[in-house]
Amino acid sequence: MKKLEERILKDGKVLLGDVLKVDSFLNHQIDVQLLSDMAEEIYNKFSDRSVTKVLTIEASGISIACTVAGCFSVPCLFAKKNKINKNLGDNLYCSQVKSFTHGTVYNVVVSKDFLASGDRVIIVDDFLANGNALRGLINIVKQAGAEVAGIAIAIEKGYQGGGDSLRKEGYTIESLAIVEEMNPDTGEIRFRD
Amino acid sequence: MKKLEERILKDGKVLLGDVLKVDSFLNHQIDVQLLSDMAEEIYNKFSDRSVTKVLTIEASGISIACTVAGCFSVPCLFAKKNKINKNLGDNLYCSQVKSFTHGTVYNVVVSKDFLASGDRVIIVDDFLANGNALRGLINIVKQAGAEVAGIAIAIEKGYQGGGDSLRKEGYTIESLAIVEEMNPDTGEIRFRD
Repeated sequence: MKKLEERILKDGKVLLGDVLKVDSFLNHQIDVQLLSDMAEEIYNKFSDRSVTKVLTIEASGISIACTVAGCFSVPCLFAKKNKINKNLGDNLYCSQVKSFTHGTVYNVVVSKDFLASGDRVIIVDDFLANGNALRGLINIVKQAGAEVAGIAIAIEKGYQGGGDSLRKEGYTIESLAIVEEMNPDTGEIRFRD
Repeated sequence: MKKLEERILKDGKVLLGDVLKVDSFLNHQIDVQLLSDMAEEIYNKFSDRSVTKVLTIEASGISIACTVAGCFSVPCLFAKKNKINKNLGDNLYCSQVKSFTHGTVYNVVVSKDFLASGDRVIIVDDFLANGNALRGLINIVKQAGAEVAGIAIAIEKGYQGGGDSLRKEGYTIESLAIVEEMNPDTGEIRFRD
């Protein structure tokens, strides 16, 4: 998506430690016009897939997932991290995820009340790197006996390979921008064609 | 807001430990049509306040804050919890909050890049109980030298007093539903008129 790539080039910052900082428009401060354009683009890519639910993971996936769910007129569901608490109960699908950003392992949970066989789920997230969070969400969809109708990502770090190995397994992944290379010294970012 | 109150009565569950569970439509699974109606109601209440930014706190405030920000055509900014990490840097406003739900203390942080004097901020959240999270956000707005243009809440637990004590201090708080009493034995919920 041209508009997102241009915005990454304009406002994104490449930091040491393989960090692409987009917190001025995507995952801390959010440009709601860009968000709306991104959601529409995702909707157009998956509008023929009979989607019944949009699934994401807290926190930074929620804004885009909700906006996408608005386009589809289906509920948005966000998985919670490490929260097996009194507000959720024990009626949960649970999956373990290793965080690339923070170097930790956490549980991802979704209430069994909101995902069931028959559901056709679009999984949405802001970033895809090695694909660990995504695999956690896919696992939860499978636990529910539901189907992954597609995967939509704002920014994929293509060179980390998580997206491509999931594509090889047969998943349809639409990433609005795929970073193929980025350089913390020069700040340069190259996108996949 | 009639529609939200009716939905709480229909799908909300009163649990022991002073928990009002609304995870089927508000803070785990999200009804995007209700969300949109709530955002419009909030917009109508504050449309004359020259709002420049909507501020919330992750995670469950993000969906409503983003939708409200869309109505105002201003950026949405969400404070992060306990995340002084490499993606944020140290250029932060920080405030300490005691969680009513989880009985813990956490830091709330916002990058100094996105809030400044001159900003007129609507603070939005899904719940208001004793007001601790809200006071953390207000504190951050003040650190930035910005102004709290208003506070919008989906569900206020009126009987906990956090909202009323902030109103006494002069803040305009619009809560779409104010629970005055709820009973875990009977499941009964009474709203403020």
